[in-house]
Amino acid sequence: MHEVSVGIVGLGNVGMGTLSILAENAGRIEEKLGFRLRVAAVCSRSVGSKTIPAELGPVLKTADWREVVAHPDVDVVAELVGGATVAAEIIEAAIAHKKSVVTANKELMALRGPEIWESAIAAGINLAMEASVAGGIPIHAVLREGISGDRLQTIYGILNGTSNYILTEMEKHGAPLPTVLAEAQRLGYAEADPSADIDGFDARSKLAILAALAFGQKVAPADIYTEGIRRISPMDFQYAHRLGHTIRLVCAARMTSEGLTLSVRPALIQTSTILAGVQGAYNAVWVKGAYGADTFYYGRGAGPHPTGVAVVSDLMRVAREIRSGSPERVSPFAHERLGEFQPRSFLDQKRPFYLRFRVDDRPGIIAALAGILAGKHISLEAVLQEPCDTKHDLPFVITVEPTHERAVRAAVEEMSKLEFLLEPPLAMPMEPSL
Amino acid sequence: MHEVSVGIVGLGNVGMGTLSILAENAGRIEEKLGFRLRVAAVCSRSVGSKTIPAELGPVLKTADWREVVAHPDVDVVAELVGGATVAAEIIEAAIAHKKSVVTANKELMALRGPEIWESAIAAGINLAMEASVAGGIPIHAVLREGISGDRLQTIYGILNGTSNYILTEMEKHGAPLPTVLAEAQRLGYAEADPSADIDGFDARSKLAILAALAFGQKVAPADIYTEGIRRISPMDFQYAHRLGHTIRLVCAARMTSEGLTLSVRPALIQTSTILAGVQGAYNAVWVKGAYGADTFYYGRGAGPHPTGVAVVSDLMRVAREIRSGSPERVSPFAHERLGEFQPRSFLDQKRPFYLRFRVDDRPGIIAALAGILAGKHISLEAVLQEPCDTKHDLPFVITVEPTHERAVRAAVEEMSKLEFLLEPPLAMPMEPSL
Repeated sequence: MHEVSVGIVGLGNVGMGTLSILAENAGRIEEKLGFRLRVAAVCSRSVGSKTIPAELGPVLKTADWREVVAHPDVDVVAELVGGATVAAEIIEAAIAHKKSVVTANKELMALRGPEIWESAIAAGINLAMEASVAGGIPIHAVLREGISGDRLQTIYGILNGTSNYILTEMEKHGAPLPTVLAEAQRLGYAEADPSADIDGFDARSKLAILAALAFGQKVAPADIYTEGIRRISPMDFQYAHRLGHTIRLVCAARMTSEGLTLSVRPALIQTSTILAGVQGAYNAVWVKGAYGADTFYYGRGAGPHPTGVAVVSDLMRVAREIRSGSPERVSPFAHERLGEFQPRSFLDQKRPFYLRFRVDDRPGIIAALAGILAGKHISLEAVLQEPCDTKHDLPFVITVEPTHERAVRAAVEEMSKLEFLLEPPLAMPMEPSL
Repeated sequence: MHEVSVGIVGLGNVGMGTLSILAENAGRIEEKLGFRLRVAAVCSRSVGSKTIPAELGPVLKTADWREVVAHPDVDVVAELVGGATVAAEIIEAAIAHKKSVVTANKELMALRGPEIWESAIAAGINLAMEASVAGGIPIHAVLREGISGDRLQTIYGILNGTSNYILTEMEKHGAPLPTVLAEAQRLGYAEADPSADIDGFDARSKLAILAALAFGQKVAPADIYTEGIRRISPMDFQYAHRLGHTIRLVCAARMTSEGLTLSVRPALIQTSTILAGVQGAYNAVWVKGAYGADTFYYGRGAGPHPTGVAVVSDLMRVAREIRSGSPERVSPFAHERLGEFQPRSFLDQKRPFYLRFRVDDRPGIIAALAGILAGKHISLEAVLQEPCDTKHDLPFVITVEPTHERAVRAAVEEMSKLEFLLEPPLAMPMEPSL
């Protein structure tokens, strides 16, 4: 076999980015592989309106993905459609045709990846999904092989570029979330329906995949505690800065003596940490292993070209496996077998907390809040107040010493009944170990 | 084959770190591989004084590396001796015995890697060397497969932990190089003979290897322009900070329209960049590709455990190749064939420069220096002077606008003849693209 042939299904941003890299970079790809990676077929519902790079030579163009999957020349199918419905059919059909699969589909891989992987093994083909998490960062390659000898303890990720863009814009310009979100939508960084990004669901899928790669556990996204960024406002950045911190949507996986805990939530992280420097639509992953200690990976989270690099690199890897006749040499989830995730509560983890209040000012407020904290045996650390024009919507912040989250939640629940509060307190952990 | 067996030659820090990971982490390694990675033999000149972890079970202990290489059970030899003499014999003997090789040896791989790799191919065995560059960072895995689809343009690395430790200590405490170096030696961060670290030779070997991985060129270390950190003093950090910069020993590889340029040298980099945040003995690699844009990798540069993780991860990769019967699926240099490096001069690259002077003060100094710059058509940007006690050893700095390095060097040469200078000017590029 002097070449390996690829079929691309889905010619959106990532599909077109992938095609342009395969066309423009063909020479270098062949230098690395020692053989040619050919595009044999492409599929899009609107294939007629797509410009297929001429350098690719003759390519079957079709609006029917079944033609790509069934094409006798196609050795590998790249599923770049996204979502959990048609994409699943495409991948299942490819596997049934004994074609290897490369996918960028975080949603499907988070929901059904391990099961799809088992069908892939049974069919003797390869499944690769580098592009499914943190597009521009080769975090799959790192966790699958690069640091496979380590025993991982903690992963912190900034895995959703849209919410990171929104938070860092809010931080820089002091604009409220709706304003920044509208601007992000105008620039094409956020969808018309922004929920997947700002409510944390996109990041949650990615964390589910990373948890399997890092800890060998099969995680249902719904089992991950998830809290989005809707309640964060510019004043939270003011207070965070006074505390030497900033705010990021942090995806955290921690292996504790009781098991694995997973969460996606906004958190305060120290401004001096490397993760705090991640600005705009960038992604980052911070990994702590028992042996290799801290490693940190940073790059673009999305975009046609960065994600296209991940797809093309996967295609190259799979093409090599096909050429050398060794399917599934390395599990796409880094482990030969995945254990079941037993969701563990992190309510008994101890951390300092940030509590932000908006009140209708009157005497006795601090006394009332401090009384509730004292009743839960929570030690108050500091009370901060920025200057404010009105006494009727007065913000301030209380930080508390490392405390079980369970106690903080109970306090927040009790505080929420106080009539001088304009909304329930906003509680965020302050990550000490970052 | 229900297991793959390893022979470890060299039980220094890295060898002992590797053994302890193989012992303590055996369960998780087997979960990932689906088979056992067994240590069959170990070798050290002082093997009698080494404590071999009991969990490893029966292990041949010998002071003769030939016994390890010839041992019938050993499938992979880990060469952790270092240096370019005995290590070369060990690796050649292993290859002659058709044993795969994992090595942490930057010096040997930089000098003779491509040639050793060719013998490995001829013998049908694997050669892996993740630990040879930036121990704790899986940069080989990243460049070999993770982002193999990209076309790389620039790599900036901080690849020598000792000199980075010295520079950042000097920056923090204002102590001169001899003081910081003595402290680093006391702490075991620097060798009794520090030349390999502070004169840039260690970093140069690593850059030679990275250049092969990233650009597919066979680079002789001696062909890399190399300048160490001996002339950097605390006052340079004071001036750099005033300019919004810091100083790091930067390993740079740039693919230009004229070819690849390589250098190891101290340079000013903006404090706002992610590379400037690399403190102490950490390493980092910043990669710019045509498609994936910026990615950044950070971790420990050395140490028994971080480097041990790299060795163990390589052993796992090679063990998988052996089990699946596919030797040399991916070139250890990322490219199936390496081109010859044609050293290109970077003297025609344009950058702003920092020039630091020490003078015996008198009237007309600035005029004389500015005159020389004007004579070379170099535009002066700023003149900076920090307060100083004595007029007889007065430091100050001139920065110049982006200029061909050739012109700067000519100016420095002419300036060096001025009798009021206490030493030749110290010239460092200011890296604008970081």
